[in-house]
Amino acid sequence: MSLLIIGSVAFDAIETPFGKTDKIVGGAATFASLAASYFYDRVKIVAVVGDDFPKEDIAYFKSQHIDTTGLQIKQGERSFFWSGKYHNDMNSRDTLVTELNVLADFDPIIPDSYQDCEYLLLGNLTPKVQQTVINRLYNRPKLIVLDTMNFWMDIALDDLLQTLKSIDVLAINDAEARQLSGEYSLVKAAGKILQMGPKYLIIKKGEHGALLFGEGKIFSAPALPLKDVFDPTGAGDTFAGGFIGYLAQSGEISFDRMKNGIIIGSVLASFCVEKFGTEKLKNLTQEEIKARVQQFVQLSTFQID
Amino acid sequence: MSLLIIGSVAFDAIETPFGKTDKIVGGAATFASLAASYFYDRVKIVAVVGDDFPKEDIAYFKSQHIDTTGLQIKQGERSFFWSGKYHNDMNSRDTLVTELNVLADFDPIIPDSYQDCEYLLLGNLTPKVQQTVINRLYNRPKLIVLDTMNFWMDIALDDLLQTLKSIDVLAINDAEARQLSGEYSLVKAAGKILQMGPKYLIIKKGEHGALLFGEGKIFSAPALPLKDVFDPTGAGDTFAGGFIGYLAQSGEISFDRMKNGIIIGSVLASFCVEKFGTEKLKNLTQEEIKARVQQFVQLSTFQID
Repeated sequence: MSLLIIGSVAFDAIETPFGKTDKIVGGAATFASLAASYFYDRVKIVAVVGDDFPKEDIAYFKSQHIDTTGLQIKQGERSFFWSGKYHNDMNSRDTLVTELNVLADFDPIIPDSYQDCEYLLLGNLTPKVQQTVINRLYNRPKLIVLDTMNFWMDIALDDLLQTLKSIDVLAINDAEARQLSGEYSLVKAAGKILQMGPKYLIIKKGEHGALLFGEGKIFSAPALPLKDVFDPTGAGDTFAGGFIGYLAQSGEISFDRMKNGIIIGSVLASFCVEKFGTEKLKNLTQEEIKARVQQFVQLSTFQID
Repeated sequence: MSLLIIGSVAFDAIETPFGKTDKIVGGAATFASLAASYFYDRVKIVAVVGDDFPKEDIAYFKSQHIDTTGLQIKQGERSFFWSGKYHNDMNSRDTLVTELNVLADFDPIIPDSYQDCEYLLLGNLTPKVQQTVINRLYNRPKLIVLDTMNFWMDIALDDLLQTLKSIDVLAINDAEARQLSGEYSLVKAAGKILQMGPKYLIIKKGEHGALLFGEGKIFSAPALPLKDVFDPTGAGDTFAGGFIGYLAQSGEISFDRMKNGIIIGSVLASFCVEKFGTEKLKNLTQEEIKARVQQFVQLSTFQID
């Protein structure tokens, strides 16, 4: 029994209205596995880095009981690098640099020791690579969650549509749900997307929270109103990692558990955006997490006759 | 004891992607009083119309126990008329026609029989007229709620800031909260606005729900995800009417009651947008309202350890 997470492990350089960073460690699998590790102790990653990736960061994964057997280190090559600058509203950003490097021909090799995977998070990568991971697992996981983005809808829609047929939960943002479905109404968009394969759809709405659709039901999770969103990078990956980490821990797949998973994902994402990169996410205590879960409870609870 | 609502009673002509109307009855006081009347039977309006306003619509107010003693009918003059066209996203619109007519020199006369007012909703009008109503009440109401819009922030900011000092609850949308405070973060915006006079701030976010700030607390209410938003006209007024109607009925002013008031306002607004103008709002049953309240409960309830 384990939770397998694939995605990028990479470098980011980020500029926000609050400051800028040098190259810092980022990537979908980084954020997602750190988030999941607070809830589940059998997290395993499949990813690729170059020999420029710091050994101490790999050691950090291990210290958090994140299995890095599937982390390929390509000698003589460089890690994926992304640089971006956020606008004042923190909702939009310009990409300054994208260097694919090792990601350009990433072949996701699944170690034999990973074949006990019951929970699979396909972090944002090309739909073909995501599909390859599914194909290479001997047994179909109990739960497959896929994160993607508008970029793949633009350039690899057919591959994405194909991969969607094999998954259980799709996590995308509201603009992406509208693009994928061609519907402006998120209810109509969800109706169409749930016919494409996934049994559940999570629509992430940033500062407006998230919606879960499935089993003919809808759940609306709030976002924690924050004084400052310091750096949104990785918030979506963190959300997905917290979501599937919670579900893996609970061992139960149901709409009610997914609601809680969304709250947990939102809690971890709310920490993620408070500092640059993984800084905040690396240094949480269970007490801090529990206290913030209670903030979400208070934020959204009402008693009406 | 009564609930006094001031605002426009007027004609609208609306065009949406779903169709268009001729002149139909609208106006802030119309939507708000209809919404409030489902919860409170001592609703009184102060407004002004021309002699072109249909007698049967005034009769309809009365049939809903809405007191129209304060509805001035100006002989030889015409009612306020607004015409607008919504864009495909239904979040933005173009104003096609604004004829102030009787609203141009509206003097809000308070009948003596209205002086028992304990709850006051100042619907969207010039801040000066809103202030005049406060000044003309012999006793300060238990609760004063003010609705306004960006237009008054643009052309009458000083008057608005003055009026804000006299009220308890301000209801505006997120863009307006940002404009009024000069802060992008809604938490920071709320902090500044709550120093301007109001003890509570409601930030309406349309399809993303609403936030309540006050007493150092925050409540986040979901919006009901709808297949179609048919016509958003009057949704904000309906929200405000439902909010204060619920509070007047409960007789209790507290953060917890206001949370429920926001759910009730959201419930009524979710009905309002399902048809043109007041059509849906005029024909609700208590059973329909209760069922939709339960939808909001199910939409936002989670149980987490």
